[in-house]
Amino acid sequence: MVEPANTVGIPLNHTALLKDELDIVIPTIRNLDFLEMWRPFLQPYHLIIVQDGDPSKTIAVPEGFDYELYNRNDINRILGPKASCISFKDSACRCFGYMVSKKKYIFTIDDDCFVAKDPAGKAVNALEQHIKNLLCPSSPFFFNTLYDPYREGADFVRGYPFSLREGVSTAVSHGLWLNIPDYDAPTQLVKPKERNTRYVDAVMTIPKGTLFPMCGMNLAFDRDLIGPAMYFGLMGDGQPIGRYDDMWAGWCVKVICDHLGLGVKTGLPYIYHSKASNPFVNLKKEYKGIFWQEDIIPFFQSAKLSKEAVTVQQCYIELSKMVKEKLSAIDPYFDKLADAMVTWIEAWDELNPATKA
Amino acid sequence: MVEPANTVGIPLNHTALLKDELDIVIPTIRNLDFLEMWRPFLQPYHLIIVQDGDPSKTIAVPEGFDYELYNRNDINRILGPKASCISFKDSACRCFGYMVSKKKYIFTIDDDCFVAKDPAGKAVNALEQHIKNLLCPSSPFFFNTLYDPYREGADFVRGYPFSLREGVSTAVSHGLWLNIPDYDAPTQLVKPKERNTRYVDAVMTIPKGTLFPMCGMNLAFDRDLIGPAMYFGLMGDGQPIGRYDDMWAGWCVKVICDHLGLGVKTGLPYIYHSKASNPFVNLKKEYKGIFWQEDIIPFFQSAKLSKEAVTVQQCYIELSKMVKEKLSAIDPYFDKLADAMVTWIEAWDELNPATKA
Repeated sequence: MVEPANTVGIPLNHTALLKDELDIVIPTIRNLDFLEMWRPFLQPYHLIIVQDGDPSKTIAVPEGFDYELYNRNDINRILGPKASCISFKDSACRCFGYMVSKKKYIFTIDDDCFVAKDPAGKAVNALEQHIKNLLCPSSPFFFNTLYDPYREGADFVRGYPFSLREGVSTAVSHGLWLNIPDYDAPTQLVKPKERNTRYVDAVMTIPKGTLFPMCGMNLAFDRDLIGPAMYFGLMGDGQPIGRYDDMWAGWCVKVICDHLGLGVKTGLPYIYHSKASNPFVNLKKEYKGIFWQEDIIPFFQSAKLSKEAVTVQQCYIELSKMVKEKLSAIDPYFDKLADAMVTWIEAWDELNPATKA
Repeated sequence: MVEPANTVGIPLNHTALLKDELDIVIPTIRNLDFLEMWRPFLQPYHLIIVQDGDPSKTIAVPEGFDYELYNRNDINRILGPKASCISFKDSACRCFGYMVSKKKYIFTIDDDCFVAKDPAGKAVNALEQHIKNLLCPSSPFFFNTLYDPYREGADFVRGYPFSLREGVSTAVSHGLWLNIPDYDAPTQLVKPKERNTRYVDAVMTIPKGTLFPMCGMNLAFDRDLIGPAMYFGLMGDGQPIGRYDDMWAGWCVKVICDHLGLGVKTGLPYIYHSKASNPFVNLKKEYKGIFWQEDIIPFFQSAKLSKEAVTVQQCYIELSKMVKEKLSAIDPYFDKLADAMVTWIEAWDELNPATKA
């Protein structure tokens, strides 16, 4: 049986890596008691809490954590009319936190995620592993059968071209989940009791040209390298779809990373995912996405960005035009989404003016 | 510390999966004492032993194993002038065993590979895992973050297109190695003491369009689906290169699997690799390959087979023409290799005449 780790008694990590260069973004509608368990690992870091739903509600944050909190009123005040690109009543709102951060790295985590145990029973410091993943290169151009060649005790195997061993910068670190796996509503309905108990001790680069389902539950990225592509789309209130926010971001991010020669890693670290969301509610949110992804994925698989697109923003604006042109035929929603993608970039650039060289 | 498993006392596997549909191919120059340790798992199967080097030498096979053995004289007698395509004094000779087999599946293993232990200390039945890998589908068109979705306790994650969940037939199962990792000579020289102690409990499909370094040490495949592409090239005696036999096969196999919509899996099972080969000897064998692969890999990455190529043989002949046209500029060796690829297919078809429908 898989259970979360007990972190009581683990001393606070005073030598926290990248303490001043990383923000933790948490979207929530409830008190953040889950942070108690994370205290030894996360307390040294600054939190950006994005409060979803009723802005008059007060969110309690455990003592000792350093944080800023934004509710819907704050988002509307800061972005003005551009606030329309930030979703409401959906965890997609978290991407507002990416935008207001001033740090190089982001770690985002859901409030139903707890500290996992490794097979030896040790509490997994998820953030530390994400940082390791982000700070060492990726190898997207050729597959290494012993997984991440940059990990201790591993290397490139025989037959791996030497010219590719320097690797490329890692933009994204995608972590996984023990206990409740990240299944769609149909799979949840069919396998209500399935739990993920398999701890796979691997980190790997997702090869160039291959898309993946990026989950926003336990995710870290380099904001300088890929931040403007981490838009979680229009979901939730007033939209025909939910639970595709992170998927949308993942498709866009991967296409842009492939174009710009950046790496995406997946695997460790695990978190312990405690609570399965309601599959009936999820089905209602997802069902259009389940249809639409059959067309969206081939669209992203064949999307080719131009040589002129050399910044993430330029890539993203190109993608938004393709979305408008190619996906609007599926549903008028994509027309609106394409516009929101442009608004997102405008808002990003407004809050993150280019620094003079 | 990682050690091989002890298999003394493990009862013989009388319900061996696919017992009558699988041959085990072993290239060797010495007595096959290593089979003693494999007895509980491999004794029910038929062995094809390809004796390399001096044909007058007698190879001892532990009692109770059912086998046929071919030395160089046998190969010359059976193939006549076409025997020129089978390497001598190199483990590349093993592919002769693939050709003379009449079974649907092949498992090939080196004689310095022993039974590995899983993290619980249990002896790993490598062949059983290979068979599981081959009998369940692959998912090459989209990445599944929880690895093989067909394994017990796993599935496709949220965002995986439903139209792709049926998967495709698996043609190849590539297993890994604990203890001595499969490093090239330069890496062996730089890290003489590195041992692989990380047991990664995963099987995964190598995505379409991604090449990988296929190692022949612990490998299984479906002969009906991909057999004619499993040519290990011209290596060893009289050739300018060695230790690229399996790599060559892997590049060809992956390009053809991608073209024909077949899957390639890697990961479990592990074997325990006991003996590092001499890095100085290896360097001599490899050094041209180390240069050449910088051009060969881009060649295979961009190789496009025609729609007319619908059988493995047709694909392979097309590839041989491309090799002649594009790689001969690197070295005249590739001209000879391209011819040998054609000879191999001719010999394969001679020994494996098409059955009438």
